[in-house]
Amino acid sequence: MTEADNSVGIVTAQLAVFDTPLPLLSGSLIGNWELKYETYGTLNRDKSNAVLVCHALSGHHHVAGRYTEDDAAPGWWDSMVGPGKPIDTRRFFVVGVNNLGGCHGSTGPSSLRPETGEPWGAAFPVVTVSDWVNAQALLADRLGIERWAAVIGGSLGGMQALQWTISYPARVGHALVIASAPKLSAQNIAFNDVARQAILSDPDFHGGDFYRHGTAPRRGLRLARMLGHITYLSDDGMGEKFGRMLRSGEYRFGYDVEFEIESYLRYQGDKFSDIFDANTYLLMTKALDYFDPAADAGHDLAAALSDVKASFLVASFTSDWRFSPARSRELVDALTRADRRVSYAEIESVHGHDAFLMLDPPYVALMRTYLDRVAQEVGA
Amino acid sequence: MTEADNSVGIVTAQLAVFDTPLPLLSGSLIGNWELKYETYGTLNRDKSNAVLVCHALSGHHHVAGRYTEDDAAPGWWDSMVGPGKPIDTRRFFVVGVNNLGGCHGSTGPSSLRPETGEPWGAAFPVVTVSDWVNAQALLADRLGIERWAAVIGGSLGGMQALQWTISYPARVGHALVIASAPKLSAQNIAFNDVARQAILSDPDFHGGDFYRHGTAPRRGLRLARMLGHITYLSDDGMGEKFGRMLRSGEYRFGYDVEFEIESYLRYQGDKFSDIFDANTYLLMTKALDYFDPAADAGHDLAAALSDVKASFLVASFTSDWRFSPARSRELVDALTRADRRVSYAEIESVHGHDAFLMLDPPYVALMRTYLDRVAQEVGA
Repeated sequence: MTEADNSVGIVTAQLAVFDTPLPLLSGSLIGNWELKYETYGTLNRDKSNAVLVCHALSGHHHVAGRYTEDDAAPGWWDSMVGPGKPIDTRRFFVVGVNNLGGCHGSTGPSSLRPETGEPWGAAFPVVTVSDWVNAQALLADRLGIERWAAVIGGSLGGMQALQWTISYPARVGHALVIASAPKLSAQNIAFNDVARQAILSDPDFHGGDFYRHGTAPRRGLRLARMLGHITYLSDDGMGEKFGRMLRSGEYRFGYDVEFEIESYLRYQGDKFSDIFDANTYLLMTKALDYFDPAADAGHDLAAALSDVKASFLVASFTSDWRFSPARSRELVDALTRADRRVSYAEIESVHGHDAFLMLDPPYVALMRTYLDRVAQEVGA
Repeated sequence: MTEADNSVGIVTAQLAVFDTPLPLLSGSLIGNWELKYETYGTLNRDKSNAVLVCHALSGHHHVAGRYTEDDAAPGWWDSMVGPGKPIDTRRFFVVGVNNLGGCHGSTGPSSLRPETGEPWGAAFPVVTVSDWVNAQALLADRLGIERWAAVIGGSLGGMQALQWTISYPARVGHALVIASAPKLSAQNIAFNDVARQAILSDPDFHGGDFYRHGTAPRRGLRLARMLGHITYLSDDGMGEKFGRMLRSGEYRFGYDVEFEIESYLRYQGDKFSDIFDANTYLLMTKALDYFDPAADAGHDLAAALSDVKASFLVASFTSDWRFSPARSRELVDALTRADRRVSYAEIESVHGHDAFLMLDPPYVALMRTYLDRVAQEVGA
């Protein structure tokens, strides 16, 4: 099969403009905000086949397909979304959205503030997972989608899927929560804070208003990304891929690249720091830290889930140490105690946290089977 | 029991000056070098009761005791070294030494170079674990110690203990290798490289010659230490100690300290960046990366250990994910294949890698029992 056969093909991003101010959990209001989004497939007559794909820390609305014939790379989850793929665009109407605070076209710290004509910078308010879900709900209204057949996400995306079932119980049929956690651990927060400190202490950060200085905290963002990457891969996976391989075959006794793993990480860091907005990175890590739906229910996750109506697929990967299987089981246990419908899969993989973006066959089979059932339910 | 009863008391550091140049693994020679060291207890008549304590990444020669009556803190392993303690100074003559390249009095990047009267800075050569062991052997000669009853170390210190048994098989009775590994994994190297990049990319680093600019790469060193700390603690231990505790009881929606874990890490980073030399930090991480005694024996660790005469105690801690028990078992397996004497203990602890510095009762009992046997063997 050629790519053309199972690709959504050439896609175009769209912009939804909202002029009603959005109240945020922090107490701030954000007025005149925009969401960049893409859709694939066709919304059926009774509007029952819509699927929302929520993105993780560095993701965006461009989930599948290419913008031009010679586009270098497709959307970030092209492997999972397309005709005949597990999230089958012949059956589902799939929506991808760049979250508020993002740097891929939705209103965020690097966007021009209408009031001033300058980038928001440090003035952009901190946004949370529930703020994103509220914004996504307004986009759903705009698209005429009263109820999602499924809301799907990995990692931070999984937290959005979970939040949807709590914030809008009647609007979610199924939540697919993959490689995620119901809240961050102290270690998770610690890694995020080192990443943030790398950015905040970069002399080019200028308190978040680096745009007007014509610079960007690339050093800090590069370090944050290098560190992030370590937590996305498993120890064993890194060992298999890089081991102690030396770039030049021998020790050089200096600080240039010596081990292949150094080369890989520095490349990832450099590339990311060229394209991503540091303020968005900060916001995303804060949204991760703050997410804790049980907190409002006396720290009892089952109580937080008592009004949930969705059915759940929770999936974790054996070598994921960022959000280990134990973290997914916390959610599964709470859903069970709350007497909700939940399927749980702990998938053998060497790919660590990144496995949610990969194509380990048991994972693909699981997604295909589960989403086939969802499609049948909604007659798609 | 009061501290006075089991403390080595007031101690004084000493300096050994060497004027014969030391050849390093890198091919460099280092001339006119000095080692700062301390000793506790008394060398017996047949000089059979000497014990060398090797330090880890941020350690030094000041292992036990205090410099003055009102010294704020004792040496870094005071809990383990003293009269009646597991490394019993009533029986052993204990030597602590600051390694070459250190920043606590031995010749290192922040030392004045005799030829120029300026700090070495970037000109200081990269040193390795086997270089340190060679330097320590010259110190042993100076002290009249032909053979150590035991060489003891945790983490990077354990690597030195292991290297001693390979470089000087006749000079080591017992090697105690605690919370260590026979080589770093790709993930270990990756963490080190992020720490190095934080320092190297700090604008105050000035290519290693920051001394002459009257500055220091404190931002980078602070990040390196924060990151290091995460890897020293276990996920569960951090969870027990800090969890998601908030400093002010509620979310502040900003980038100041919010979670207690952030406060702890930033404090550790700030404190460390005030007192430690960034070039030394770089060197120490390189010594870790390079350590791989099997490499010279066709990557067969058992072959690398074939001439070893020492008996081994290898100990690991269940929650240590920096150098997990599996890494210690690699060494134990190789020692067993090489038909060497080895005892192995995998100690239940929530303290992660830091456990080697703590006093979990089974660990203390193990050290006490093993070292009692060593003392009996040498008639101490």
